[in-house]
Amino acid sequence: MTETPAFSEAGVIFMKQRVCSILFLSVLVFSLLAGAATDPLPSWAAGSRKDRLVRFVESVSTPTEDHYVAESERIAVFDNDGTLWVEHPVPTEIVFTFDRVRALAPRHPEWAQKPPFQAVLNDDRAAMSRFTLRDFAILLGATHGGMTSGEFREIARVWLKTAKHPRYQKLYTECVYQPQLELLRFLRSKGFKTYIVSGGEVEFMRAFAEEVYGVPPEQVIGTSMKTVYQLKPDLDAVLNRQEEISSINDGPGKPVNIDLQIGRHPLLAFGNSNGDQQMLEHSASQTRPSLQLLLHHDDGVREYAYDRDTSNGRLSTAMDEALRRNWVLVSFKEDFKTVFPPARPSGSSAKPAPPAKR
Amino acid sequence: MTETPAFSEAGVIFMKQRVCSILFLSVLVFSLLAGAATDPLPSWAAGSRKDRLVRFVESVSTPTEDHYVAESERIAVFDNDGTLWVEHPVPTEIVFTFDRVRALAPRHPEWAQKPPFQAVLNDDRAAMSRFTLRDFAILLGATHGGMTSGEFREIARVWLKTAKHPRYQKLYTECVYQPQLELLRFLRSKGFKTYIVSGGEVEFMRAFAEEVYGVPPEQVIGTSMKTVYQLKPDLDAVLNRQEEISSINDGPGKPVNIDLQIGRHPLLAFGNSNGDQQMLEHSASQTRPSLQLLLHHDDGVREYAYDRDTSNGRLSTAMDEALRRNWVLVSFKEDFKTVFPPARPSGSSAKPAPPAKR
Repeated sequence: MTETPAFSEAGVIFMKQRVCSILFLSVLVFSLLAGAATDPLPSWAAGSRKDRLVRFVESVSTPTEDHYVAESERIAVFDNDGTLWVEHPVPTEIVFTFDRVRALAPRHPEWAQKPPFQAVLNDDRAAMSRFTLRDFAILLGATHGGMTSGEFREIARVWLKTAKHPRYQKLYTECVYQPQLELLRFLRSKGFKTYIVSGGEVEFMRAFAEEVYGVPPEQVIGTSMKTVYQLKPDLDAVLNRQEEISSINDGPGKPVNIDLQIGRHPLLAFGNSNGDQQMLEHSASQTRPSLQLLLHHDDGVREYAYDRDTSNGRLSTAMDEALRRNWVLVSFKEDFKTVFPPARPSGSSAKPAPPAKR
Repeated sequence: MTETPAFSEAGVIFMKQRVCSILFLSVLVFSLLAGAATDPLPSWAAGSRKDRLVRFVESVSTPTEDHYVAESERIAVFDNDGTLWVEHPVPTEIVFTFDRVRALAPRHPEWAQKPPFQAVLNDDRAAMSRFTLRDFAILLGATHGGMTSGEFREIARVWLKTAKHPRYQKLYTECVYQPQLELLRFLRSKGFKTYIVSGGEVEFMRAFAEEVYGVPPEQVIGTSMKTVYQLKPDLDAVLNRQEEISSINDGPGKPVNIDLQIGRHPLLAFGNSNGDQQMLEHSASQTRPSLQLLLHHDDGVREYAYDRDTSNGRLSTAMDEALRRNWVLVSFKEDFKTVFPPARPSGSSAKPAPPAKR
């Protein structure tokens, strides 16, 4: 047996002090590291808007808080185009629609002489800039209908694997905002169900929403095509999409479809344009605390600047409403520290998505 | 220090054998007790149909099984009337509709002379038995429309707190099938999302679905009313239900709405009539294993007996399809050991529902 060497009393006190100091410093450093590591929104710049967002989410999800809301009631709704991903210079689904018109043209020789197809096939920018909603509806019908919903989703999936944004030269599914990906994850970590409520066609969005945003198909609400059920002679049941829109999920259509498909008032609603105004108004119309956010595209350097002064006024009434009702007017320039997620290793987009948290 | 007493070699062997026997018996008794305590479906009679149901659920939710399906893909859809609760002698929502016609009649003196209201107000059974779908649509519009969706849900909730089934003298919300409540819970415990997909009006079902079935509003799909968004001068946004049906969620409408609102093929579909046939066909139309079940009301003693021989033929084509396609034809008489849940202490129905599991 070995003997423990004896220490003088002063030596023991010195040792104790040193141990305490080291312990104290360790705890301090660890706390700082942990704090930095657990900022749920590292791509959001510090400031009053981030504070308000984080405080709201914490307050409704912390049982000891006055504004605590049961987990089952925690619903967040997000617009897609311009809120979760880039919508300029042309919204992605319009690019897809024009590409599909070109791809289907050989089967439709009559399109060469028939508006609005003619303008797309001739790349007649002037004519395209005058397209009405009815023109878009015709193009949507011809490219999104006439097949089963499964077939359509697969066509969209294949297109999204190669089509690139003209300015960023990235896949469109890589032109998603990193701060919003963090917000979606943060909300889910706090028990929120995250929904997309967009003017985009529902199957087009489902083609990437689970993989890119972690939002499962049943939490995607969008514009939809008339669909007809058919039992084929081999007993296989299919859903045939007609060449006609069933419901346009934009403007007042958003709260109507939220009421129909969710049946609860979302606690948090995030949009970026007049088409989201009614969704935000609806979310604000409840006795519980709620949060409405509007993304202001004011960053012409890293992204695009479009608002009441520089664009066709798409944002003007929603911005007035945001200011009047104290909604959070998120500044792309000031609040988004990074724009896009780090580039994925090539080929990784083909991997199956991790199981999404609901 | 105390000394350990010495044992003879024979004594040690005897002790070891005794310990082994006790251990073995304990394990046996514990296993039997545990087995009895964990039967997930105690109200389902043992037999091939219960076996097939339990085996299917286990196989898709056990990672080591060949037919394992990721949790996010585990969707189960249930019809409501006649599948989860009693639909005879008159479906509950029809009883509610007639009650509402009587309650609203003082505000509509013209109804006294106006079919189909007249027949309801005069309790003219002969005329009521001749009601067409259009008559029901008019009555549904007048009683389910003309108010906000929140107001309607509250009216339905109040009615369900007192209205009783004429034969059982229980609240309608107590005339739910205990074996099905167990099945819903069992499915959720195995990672399934459970949906109701019913011809009933969506807000009528949401008035009780979460409390009674543990199914949250966003997992209720039903017939819906045309709804119009309105921002009132005080900035409160409301959704005004019109006196007109928007979508009838029955027959082929069920898979169409499943595709629109869920966007996945349900793994398990449970119905009881021709109105569920297309939902079951759609569920069966996938490459993964799936299970379709049809509840056969063959118990005139404890409930009602209605099928191809004794009723208006509602079940006939669905039963043919079930037999032809090897769907599980559940026998109310043989498979349901109990019918309703045990009576709740009086007043307990007013208590808030426990947080629902998704």
